[in-house]
Amino acid sequence: AVDGARLWQSLMDLARIGATDKGGVARLALTDLDGQARDLFAQWCRAEGCTIRVDGIGNIFARRPGARDDLPAIATGSHIDTQPTGGKFDGNYGVMAGLEVLRTLNRHGVRTEAPIEVCVWTNEEGSRFVPVMMGSGVYCDDFTLDYALSRADHDGVSVREALAAIGYAGPAPASVAAGAPRFGAYFEAHIEQGPVLEDAGIVIGAVTGALGQRWYDVTVSGMEAHAGPTPMHLRKDALFAATHLMQKVVDIALAHQPNGRGTVGCVHVHPNSRNVIPGRVEFTVDFRHGDDAGLLAMDAALRQAAAELQRDFPVGVALEQVVYFEPVAFDPLLVDAIRLGARRSGNACLDIVSGAGHDAVYVARTAPTAMIFVPCKDGISHNEIEDADPAHLEAGANVLLHAMLERAGV
Amino acid sequence: AVDGARLWQSLMDLARIGATDKGGVARLALTDLDGQARDLFAQWCRAEGCTIRVDGIGNIFARRPGARDDLPAIATGSHIDTQPTGGKFDGNYGVMAGLEVLRTLNRHGVRTEAPIEVCVWTNEEGSRFVPVMMGSGVYCDDFTLDYALSRADHDGVSVREALAAIGYAGPAPASVAAGAPRFGAYFEAHIEQGPVLEDAGIVIGAVTGALGQRWYDVTVSGMEAHAGPTPMHLRKDALFAATHLMQKVVDIALAHQPNGRGTVGCVHVHPNSRNVIPGRVEFTVDFRHGDDAGLLAMDAALRQAAAELQRDFPVGVALEQVVYFEPVAFDPLLVDAIRLGARRSGNACLDIVSGAGHDAVYVARTAPTAMIFVPCKDGISHNEIEDADPAHLEAGANVLLHAMLERAGV
Ligand SMILES: NC(=O)NCCC(=O)O
Ligand SMILES: NC(=O)NCCC(=O)O
Repeated sequence: AVDGARLWQSLMDLARIGATDKGGVARLALTDLDGQARDLFAQWCRAEGCTIRVDGIGNIFARRPGARDDLPAIATGSHIDTQPTGGKFDGNYGVMAGLEVLRTLNRHGVRTEAPIEVCVWTNEEGSRFVPVMMGSGVYCDDFTLDYALSRADHDGVSVREALAAIGYAGPAPASVAAGAPRFGAYFEAHIEQGPVLEDAGIVIGAVTGALGQRWYDVTVSGMEAHAGPTPMHLRKDALFAATHLMQKVVDIALAHQPNGRGTVGCVHVHPNSRNVIPGRVEFTVDFRHGDDAGLLAMDAALRQAAAELQRDFPVGVALEQVVYFEPVAFDPLLVDAIRLGARRSGNACLDIVSGAGHDAVYVARTAPTAMIFVPCKDGISHNEIEDADPAHLEAGANVLLHAMLERAGV
Repeated sequence: AVDGARLWQSLMDLARIGATDKGGVARLALTDLDGQARDLFAQWCRAEGCTIRVDGIGNIFARRPGARDDLPAIATGSHIDTQPTGGKFDGNYGVMAGLEVLRTLNRHGVRTEAPIEVCVWTNEEGSRFVPVMMGSGVYCDDFTLDYALSRADHDGVSVREALAAIGYAGPAPASVAAGAPRFGAYFEAHIEQGPVLEDAGIVIGAVTGALGQRWYDVTVSGMEAHAGPTPMHLRKDALFAATHLMQKVVDIALAHQPNGRGTVGCVHVHPNSRNVIPGRVEFTVDFRHGDDAGLLAMDAALRQAAAELQRDFPVGVALEQVVYFEPVAFDPLLVDAIRLGARRSGNACLDIVSGAGHDAVYVARTAPTAMIFVPCKDGISHNEIEDADPAHLEAGANVLLHAMLERAGV
């Protein structure tokens, strides 16, 4: 079994790099702080006798040799970049749980058949550089290394420059297509970032897959006019019309339960002045669903609602899809290994679907993959007050240990 | 009759001060440009033999003596400050129409019984200094001179300093309570800033009064959470709830026709990120109605809708009234004088209610008051593309001339 206190200590040590006043972490991808956190991880892994491999997009792989080094590695990991006002656990937990597995194997002198690798994926959060999940996206060839390296932050600094500045532009091939090795299996432990496990009072989530996503930009155009002298019947109020479409986003999700989700997260009103009737409203739509047919039905319902809005209100509506992630089903054998690991370590376990994207979702395109969720306090993440129970984190790491051993062979 | 070409020429000359590339005017209150425009107005009026009086808040009064100088003046005017991206006619028309009345009386050697005054009110727009309609607000004692002088712009420059810098901190008492003279009658000509006259194809609006106003700040508070992992039934989506209250604002106005108006102009969503369920939404409400009972009924309906929102959705709602202007009925005799002036000058005339606040609304607290509206193109104002037909502006000035003569006596 893992050492829960040691795991907690590593998490707290890592969280000091970029610690915020409010107890969170601000450690944006490829900043000096991210460099320091990477160095600490690499130093910890070398102290455990691991070799370190860095690829062209800065992904780090710490390798513990197996009895049969020709076998594909059994891998785990996550990310250690954070949101600008992020927490101590999002991503960091998956990497520190992997480190704890290495340490536990070493302390007990366990020799695995297959090698073990712990991965740190570059820029999962996408806060500094777009697209999100950049390191794993390059790894699975969703976009090219060159494209990723050329992305720039708000100050015009490219990923290529930022990697060089912190010394993490590695020589290893970054994508499977370019020769990066595939894993025999990939597990990722992560806080749930939602309220389901806490609500059910269960500590281990066996993640069976991830929801598909369709994101949209919507623009509703009316006519800007003075709120005082313009009678109601002569208005083209873009906001009044837009609110009806915003409500449809939620209605459509409710009509596609249990897995449909619909969110309007971002709204811009023009000119956004108290006594001016809005002439234009831009807002975003985030749709998620467990299967592609469901997601497509939600897409069709949204397009119909947009057409009806143009018919029923004196406005124009433009709808553009800007992101698509297909739903992912994780490997059934690996999900079983997690359920088994939960049973063996004496933890109740709930099948759960990941609502969010994770590096595992990309890695799943190249190897058998599954995820382990543990609860986070009040389901809150992407927030400095993000918190988790040390006992839950320990339980998750034990399940990870069991599942990896089961796949790696002893 | 007035000289329409001369009126147009004065408007175009004045519009050169602060002219923008897009054909508008940017001449914020008490800037150097405002000072230049004031100087030009004063110079034009002196050339017509007027005396100039400036009061402590910078209001300018150009006086043409009457046969009986003991009678209270028959006055007209408006403002010459503009929005940051304002037009050539808003406010400026009322002042230039007054100047054109002076010139017409002089060219025809007309001697009026009562003196005639043309007023320029300071900072009507409220773009640089809050509150709006500052000069007329001080004049009618809605707030004190000291309060107004102490208001500062974004750069920390006070009204007191700005007035001194352009030489318009005058010696005359600024408020009626402090001894500023009341008028025998006050007329204000203005572009409608709305679509009613254009829609009806009528050139003269006899403004019978102004709508009352209640403005509110509304905050809807839910719980910020990740749009992916949070199931629909565990959400506290502040935006979804808020859209229902935003729609009520319009519904309530529609239930109080013909004069009820309801606008949500300004919305801020927090944290305003695509994949985060909004935790807080702030928005504004602008209610207007022709009588106080109607406005109060709208207020009650809004408060009830806010209470129902808290009952029906998992959110908190805070509602704060931030502005109140009571409805104003203009003087029936003066409105009649305008209708008569329209008939005499051969123009069709429509009774109309001002949806917006104007200096006349404040002056009405101290003297018999009425307004003359002329159409503006597409009802658009507070916009550089604001436009008006020279023939309509001439017609409005003729009505003003007739109405003022009727009150001043010849
Ligand atoms: N885990 C995570 O926050 N991923 C970001 C993309 C998403 O919204 O699913
Ligand atoms: N005329 C004008 O724009 N007044 C500003 C205050 C209002 O919205 O009525």
